[in-house]
Amino acid sequence: MTDALDHDNVAHSMQPKDTPELRALYEGFEKEHLIPLWTQLGDLMPMHPKSKAVPHIWKWSNLLPLAEASGALVPVGRGGERRAIGLANPGLAPNAYVSPTMWAAIQYLGPRETAPEHRHSQNAFRFVVEGEGVWTVVNGDPVRMSRGDLLLTPGWNFHGHHNDTDKPMAWIDGLDIPFSQQNDVGFFEFGSERVTDYATPKFSRGERLWCHPGLRPLSGLEDTVSSPIGAYRWEYTDRALTEQLLLEDEGQPATVEPGHAAIRYVNPTTGGDVMSTIRCEFHRLRAGAATRARREVGSTVFQVFEGKGSVTIAGEETVLNIGDMFVIPSWIEWSLQAETQFDLFRFSDAPIMERLNFNRTMISET
Amino acid sequence: MTDALDHDNVAHSMQPKDTPELRALYEGFEKEHLIPLWTQLGDLMPMHPKSKAVPHIWKWSNLLPLAEASGALVPVGRGGERRAIGLANPGLAPNAYVSPTMWAAIQYLGPRETAPEHRHSQNAFRFVVEGEGVWTVVNGDPVRMSRGDLLLTPGWNFHGHHNDTDKPMAWIDGLDIPFSQQNDVGFFEFGSERVTDYATPKFSRGERLWCHPGLRPLSGLEDTVSSPIGAYRWEYTDRALTEQLLLEDEGQPATVEPGHAAIRYVNPTTGGDVMSTIRCEFHRLRAGAATRARREVGSTVFQVFEGKGSVTIAGEETVLNIGDMFVIPSWIEWSLQAETQFDLFRFSDAPIMERLNFNRTMISET
Amino acid sequence: MTDALDHDNVAHSMQPKDTPELRALYEGFEKEHLIPLWTQLGDLMPMHPKSKAVPHIWKWSNLLPLAEASGALVPVGRGGERRAIGLANPGLAPNAYVSPTMWAAIQYLGPRETAPEHRHSQNAFRFVVEGEGVWTVVNGDPVRMSRGDLLLTPGWNFHGHHNDTDKPMAWIDGLDIPFSQQNDVGFFEFGSERVTDYATPKFSRGERLWCHPGLRPLSGLEDTVSSPIGAYRWEYTDRALTEQLLLEDEGQPATVEPGHAAIRYVNPTTGGDVMSTIRCEFHRLRAGAATRARREVGSTVFQVFEGKGSVTIAGEETVLNIGDMFVIPSWIEWSLQAETQFDLFRFSDAPIMERLNFNRTMISET
Amino acid sequence: MTDALDHDNVAHSMQPKDTPELRALYEGFEKEHLIPLWTQLGDLMPMHPKSKAVPHIWKWSNLLPLAEASGALVPVGRGGERRAIGLANPGLAPNAYVSPTMWAAIQYLGPRETAPEHRHSQNAFRFVVEGEGVWTVVNGDPVRMSRGDLLLTPGWNFHGHHNDTDKPMAWIDGLDIPFSQQNDVGFFEFGSERVTDYATPKFSRGERLWCHPGLRPLSGLEDTVSSPIGAYRWEYTDRALTEQLLLEDEGQPATVEPGHAAIRYVNPTTGGDVMSTIRCEFHRLRAGAATRARREVGSTVFQVFEGKGSVTIAGEETVLNIGDMFVIPSWIEWSLQAETQFDLFRFSDAPIMERLNFNRTMISET
Repeated sequence: MTDALDHDNVAHSMQPKDTPELRALYEGFEKEHLIPLWTQLGDLMPMHPKSKAVPHIWKWSNLLPLAEASGALVPVGRGGERRAIGLANPGLAPNAYVSPTMWAAIQYLGPRETAPEHRHSQNAFRFVVEGEGVWTVVNGDPVRMSRGDLLLTPGWNFHGHHNDTDKPMAWIDGLDIPFSQQNDVGFFEFGSERVTDYATPKFSRGERLWCHPGLRPLSGLEDTVSSPIGAYRWEYTDRALTEQLLLEDEGQPATVEPGHAAIRYVNPTTGGDVMSTIRCEFHRLRAGAATRARREVGSTVFQVFEGKGSVTIAGEETVLNIGDMFVIPSWIEWSLQAETQFDLFRFSDAPIMERLNFNRTMISET
Repeated sequence: MTDALDHDNVAHSMQPKDTPELRALYEGFEKEHLIPLWTQLGDLMPMHPKSKAVPHIWKWSNLLPLAEASGALVPVGRGGERRAIGLANPGLAPNAYVSPTMWAAIQYLGPRETAPEHRHSQNAFRFVVEGEGVWTVVNGDPVRMSRGDLLLTPGWNFHGHHNDTDKPMAWIDGLDIPFSQQNDVGFFEFGSERVTDYATPKFSRGERLWCHPGLRPLSGLEDTVSSPIGAYRWEYTDRALTEQLLLEDEGQPATVEPGHAAIRYVNPTTGGDVMSTIRCEFHRLRAGAATRARREVGSTVFQVFEGKGSVTIAGEETVLNIGDMFVIPSWIEWSLQAETQFDLFRFSDAPIMERLNFNRTMISET
Repeated sequence: MTDALDHDNVAHSMQPKDTPELRALYEGFEKEHLIPLWTQLGDLMPMHPKSKAVPHIWKWSNLLPLAEASGALVPVGRGGERRAIGLANPGLAPNAYVSPTMWAAIQYLGPRETAPEHRHSQNAFRFVVEGEGVWTVVNGDPVRMSRGDLLLTPGWNFHGHHNDTDKPMAWIDGLDIPFSQQNDVGFFEFGSERVTDYATPKFSRGERLWCHPGLRPLSGLEDTVSSPIGAYRWEYTDRALTEQLLLEDEGQPATVEPGHAAIRYVNPTTGGDVMSTIRCEFHRLRAGAATRARREVGSTVFQVFEGKGSVTIAGEETVLNIGDMFVIPSWIEWSLQAETQFDLFRFSDAPIMERLNFNRTMISET
Repeated sequence: MTDALDHDNVAHSMQPKDTPELRALYEGFEKEHLIPLWTQLGDLMPMHPKSKAVPHIWKWSNLLPLAEASGALVPVGRGGERRAIGLANPGLAPNAYVSPTMWAAIQYLGPRETAPEHRHSQNAFRFVVEGEGVWTVVNGDPVRMSRGDLLLTPGWNFHGHHNDTDKPMAWIDGLDIPFSQQNDVGFFEFGSERVTDYATPKFSRGERLWCHPGLRPLSGLEDTVSSPIGAYRWEYTDRALTEQLLLEDEGQPATVEPGHAAIRYVNPTTGGDVMSTIRCEFHRLRAGAATRARREVGSTVFQVFEGKGSVTIAGEETVLNIGDMFVIPSWIEWSLQAETQFDLFRFSDAPIMERLNFNRTMISET
């Protein structure tokens, strides 16, 4: 891709002369709800993705206190449904979009509170950077939420949450709300005001049926659009990453690049992404390691889970602490640097890009 | 889906009381680029798709004269690239979007003119409701454009057009520009200012290699993301539809519903849609026939090709003439009624909906 | 793959010493229906495929008179079902197998005769090297059989044939009977003793619905295991091959190798093979052209359709005339040489090999 | 499917009269390597699968002593390659085939012995009904073999075994040798005479990379034809089955039928079968439970792993003990009955049947 010749340096000279006839033509366009391509080609079809969304970092040290303050002031219940506070990309104001396709929020549930059940076409997940004590009930199956766990509530599954303890709990939510809203695909239905099952089992039924590596129940031979696993436990994620780095130590191919272990959460019925629109991954860098700088089509969000490090986005480096979240819009260059062992949860809209064949990646040579 | 319980009748009562503390909280949100879910849930996650886009009809009798006027006033060449006038959905102003995902335009090329070559990630097609004489050159392969033909220029193929005659020609273009722009997936590259081949063969090389029913060249055994066929000729479309109605006359299953013949243009390497984001179809109704009313997730555009009839959108019936175009946003009910034999070209974003598992259809009982 | 070290030069020295104890052991094996691996490894797991089947050529000048003689002596009707004479590979005697997976025959139907309807799991096709006048009725759809046509009767479709003329007709049949018999997959059911429809339309309903290049009926959006096209007409095959050679003349990529045009008959709902177990292709060589020598896993049969040429199998060249058929077992080297323009119909078990991931090809360097 | 009308009661009456002319015709056929269909249709295309293979049961109490005796008399090393004793279906003599598609054997490795490395196209697995102490080295990755484990060596992976202890060990092997031999697809290559790595790690590298439920390494995003997991550990299998029965106790859908838990071993990159030709499963019946009688296209082999019970094949019930193996040919009715909790390992050729669309199942009503 060469930028030598781009819209800016060829376009302006080609505009038609401003004459009364042209003005009449443009008035005719307006009256008939028409807009010519030649006046806006550079915006409609840029040389490469130029997102209105901007890179942005939200500090956990700011997010959590605001969530806690909400806990005191805002009820949770039928109507508002969730005490969730969306990360609003400054470039996408006034929408509460973290990126053009994704919505991300911190959600907060006070002691003994219940967030009522509902379902929607939008795909959702939760990730727990700290705390425990909440169960999310997905289609009647209570799913424990603990530190490091990824919890899924794929589209059109009823779900509600309840806090079984005397302490509040906060976590992050990710959904494809912007994509759904922009493309008019969303349905919503209210369910029970209380969750349908207040049991607090250690493992959900979905896990008990599906979380046995390489084993598929004969009662579950039909492939499913979304993963049947409700909870991806930290214990497994941590072990998988640990083994990758040990294998690397032994000289075996196992990591993505030197010092960089990573897993993708997948649907065991297909080996593909957990949901049709959202990819979830977990990345671990060794102390001192760095990723190669890369650009990708599509947007991505990270949350620091453990350790110290930094991210460099479009050449600007920012130090990160536990819980910090950041978004990287499409085709913006980024890399990660680890000071200590550095653990990050990641989600993105990559399944959309791949299924529609828009995916491209450019990895920096150095 | 029941609308009995929806956001409107449950939401407002749940908003927190307006207190100084709440205002301080909301100021904190604003400062940190956060937006609470509970104040906007009904917009973000409606009970069913409620598009900002509106149904709209553009009359060919208005479109064509404006295109002709552009021919006199606006040059075509490097920079503006195309003399294309986009149909701008009134609900999506100020964007030149016919729907949230698709761009549609009338394009006009004067006698002996050339529209220069370029390529872009956006998928494009052209459909010819009248006229002839232009060749579109796709990756060096000259493709004749004639009445009733569907011409493809899938993403990242170089293409330019030239008019080989002394008469102007107009046609319609369809692209996934809005999807591409909203989701930041587009790349663009300028090519040759003149088309690379001014030959005017009756059939393109792609057709000669691929347009043999049920036969695949051994030199083309790799499946392709988009169809390798550059032109879907009217002759074949017409014959396929004619046969369906004859088979129906013979009591055989062949039509979609009584009196309604239809074909989908497909990629012969997979049997699937011609491009990853755009579905193209052609529909023919017998005189007096009507389609059942239906709602679908996703947006669609029709152009009347031949005959007389009407469309009923959200209960409102409009009489249609040749060349008229109309858009139906997601989940708006529509049906077609034929006065004479009634032929319509259709395109939609259905591949997006299906690949991401958002597709739903509701067909009226009556 | 090196043959330097193979079973023959390592195996014999490893056999255990013949002692009374060993004999007692081997008797114990026999009594318990056990056979040791070490005595027969070289046969069970050869260094490369070593088929019991042998290359063989059947001359049309022998086949046709024998078929004609059968016409006078053997009735066709319920019980025998078909006046078909199988090509029996000399290496596979006493089975009537042309190869380990496939059955091939010449079938003969006298004036005004009917071969009764039945159906079976086995996939079948017919190819017509000369003659006309028979219709095969597949699931009630009468399909004309003419010179150069490929006709399909995929597994479990009822089918019968009738000769509508006062002249006899002969053609070839191909089925996966050996595969079916060896692997115990076959079901069979008798149908009507007369065909269910004696109409003689020029085109079958399947063709009228499906034989429009790149167009799929909306009434046929479900993918099918086998092709819905009952007849692949010679007119299309010939045109496709002609175009490939013309494109080659123009310097365009279109042929498999210089002077060698080829098409694969495909299922339009998937772009894949016409049936799950049998691949059908047609090959055309320019006068003077030759294919590169190749070995392939799986067996294949050719019939010369037009022109003069020869085949070289395992180094031995044989001159071929119209109608001649030959079989090439797995991993035997072969090539074709054309004296005049040389047309050949081909079928093989390649879909079995590919779906089970056993396919390999080795193309000669020279 | 009705048997009322079958080959036996319609065929004989249709044979042509035995005349001198017919004899001359049949001599002509023989001379030209032709065999008529009408004399053998009932065998070639039976009304339903009628396998030459017969049901048979091999008692572990017979198998193990013969394997032990082989240990004393037969060397293991280059040439014989393996001390494996094949279960030879009495109906398929003189071939060492347990069924038309599969080979099964008991393999025996004495203290400190090594079975040399080689590779072949044939897919192989091992299952351990008792014992431990052997490591199989697959493409350089040492894989521990312990009781209840399923070990894979998919086609074309180098593999050898070594016994790291002072005790012998026996296990069963399953391969697609008959399919491979009948269809001429096999390649074989000798490797190192000693295994390439004598390390005895508790877990293989494949397990460490892949055995984390729902997690896929980013270094392994390409789908593979066979499972990348070398060992499916008993611990996981047992837990998965235990959970299914517990879920059933809780009234949840989890088992195949009442009291019948079952898992399929799968390739985590696709969710499909572990290898292209062999399906592996594990079944557990509660004490007192029974499976419904069923017929299936394709052949299957079971080995009793634990507990007491019986199998009824074609109406005949046989009591089974630990280690006993039995084969059920295509379309023979079978069911299992459990006296105590009854655990069985199962393998079959079902992937072949499904990929080629020959699969059918008939489940008894009662």
